[in-house]
Amino acid sequence: MKKKIKKVNAAILIIGNEILSGRTQDKNIAFISNWLNAECGISVKEVRIIPDNEKIISKNVLKLSKRFNYVFTTGGIGPTHDDITAQSISKAFKLKYKFHKEAYQILQKYYGKEKFNDGRKKMAKMPSEAKLIYNPSSAAPGFITKNVLSLPGVPSILNSMIENCKRYLVKGLKVYSSTLNLYTVESNIAKELKSIQNKYKKDVDIGSYPFFRLGKIGVSIVSRSTSKLTLKKIDKKLKNLSIKKKIKIFKI
Amino acid sequence: MKKKIKKVNAAILIIGNEILSGRTQDKNIAFISNWLNAECGISVKEVRIIPDNEKIISKNVLKLSKRFNYVFTTGGIGPTHDDITAQSISKAFKLKYKFHKEAYQILQKYYGKEKFNDGRKKMAKMPSEAKLIYNPSSAAPGFITKNVLSLPGVPSILNSMIENCKRYLVKGLKVYSSTLNLYTVESNIAKELKSIQNKYKKDVDIGSYPFFRLGKIGVSIVSRSTSKLTLKKIDKKLKNLSIKKKIKIFKI
Repeated sequence: MKKKIKKVNAAILIIGNEILSGRTQDKNIAFISNWLNAECGISVKEVRIIPDNEKIISKNVLKLSKRFNYVFTTGGIGPTHDDITAQSISKAFKLKYKFHKEAYQILQKYYGKEKFNDGRKKMAKMPSEAKLIYNPSSAAPGFITKNVLSLPGVPSILNSMIENCKRYLVKGLKVYSSTLNLYTVESNIAKELKSIQNKYKKDVDIGSYPFFRLGKIGVSIVSRSTSKLTLKKIDKKLKNLSIKKKIKIFKI
Repeated sequence: MKKKIKKVNAAILIIGNEILSGRTQDKNIAFISNWLNAECGISVKEVRIIPDNEKIISKNVLKLSKRFNYVFTTGGIGPTHDDITAQSISKAFKLKYKFHKEAYQILQKYYGKEKFNDGRKKMAKMPSEAKLIYNPSSAAPGFITKNVLSLPGVPSILNSMIENCKRYLVKGLKVYSSTLNLYTVESNIAKELKSIQNKYKKDVDIGSYPFFRLGKIGVSIVSRSTSKLTLKKIDKKLKNLSIKKKIKIFKI
């Protein structure tokens, strides 16, 4: 008998004044979302970016953890005063904020006893129930508390840790996507697109995204579905539409 | 008598499956946030990214519009079936969703009567109270409904329209920032940073951001305050700290 796989979703909570102020361009949202879908069949359904503020972090963690299967937090798990993710998650779930034995040992070994100062020790403090997400590039581990996975904000470190999240995640249905690029304007195909979307409401999401390329105007039609067969059907319909309207298809 | 200027805040609501899925890298958050602070003294305090879903859009618009002075939405105001921002905002505020006379005229003039098809006409439909945000690059206007400003998702078009938002915004206190780049690791200065932050809790926000550059490890200390004088004071303290700890300062 085939195992039934359900839809699994997630939210991302980006913690950091530097992203909110526009000083730093976020790179983690697209990376996590792409990885979750491709590797685990998990769809990201909401993202929030919030400031380094304990009350705000804990309120958002609690809300999102109730509404989604998983929550990924990024940022705020370093050694400085503005890194308050672990203590805020402890507050959210009413858990003690204390040293994680294994995290302490990992960090002490990495830095050596003499250089293991208070700032570095802080990175071993976590919510009491937390389990570790190992960090192969700079030792300081992330952690999972209930259904909330906490990762650092520095993209290169986060990227190196993401595979270590897998053991904690239940896989879902992967969403496949297919893109058709047309040299036309959206309003030229809006009516037909709507009728195709309405006909396949339950099976596919069709998005239409205008772009400018080498001085030409085009539209990318992106179809997303958990069924490859449905995608093929939609693709055929879109190609027929482009032939009928004499619209040139091209590959990027 | 000096006019008293208050703190003014905003939220950004990014509407679009393509950002959530990771297919498209968002560029609007950093742009809007930087512009709002530099030009209007308005601080972005929360960002949400949500799917193209009427119920979800209207719920979020309503919530954020109550909590923040302004809400900026991006995306979903084009001609296709997945562009449902205007109708969702109408629902949120229980306003009629109907043709805006001036928007209709602008679009009809731009496309010419013959090419003004249903998809294009759709871009003139808005919440009944809406006022226009003119679009110098592709005609289709954005709009403001109560305290919610709706802009398109394509960055180049959004950028060209942002100045036309100004007439609707009350200015606030500008937040200045100062960055000091040090060749050190965060944990080496965490203790002293914390004590400086605690001492100036009300006047300044100090953030610490590790980076890697040309094979070297460094930390950017970013201080943010509405007072230039306070920033100067903090800068001096940070420079003294770096001299005391023999940490090299450098400019990027």
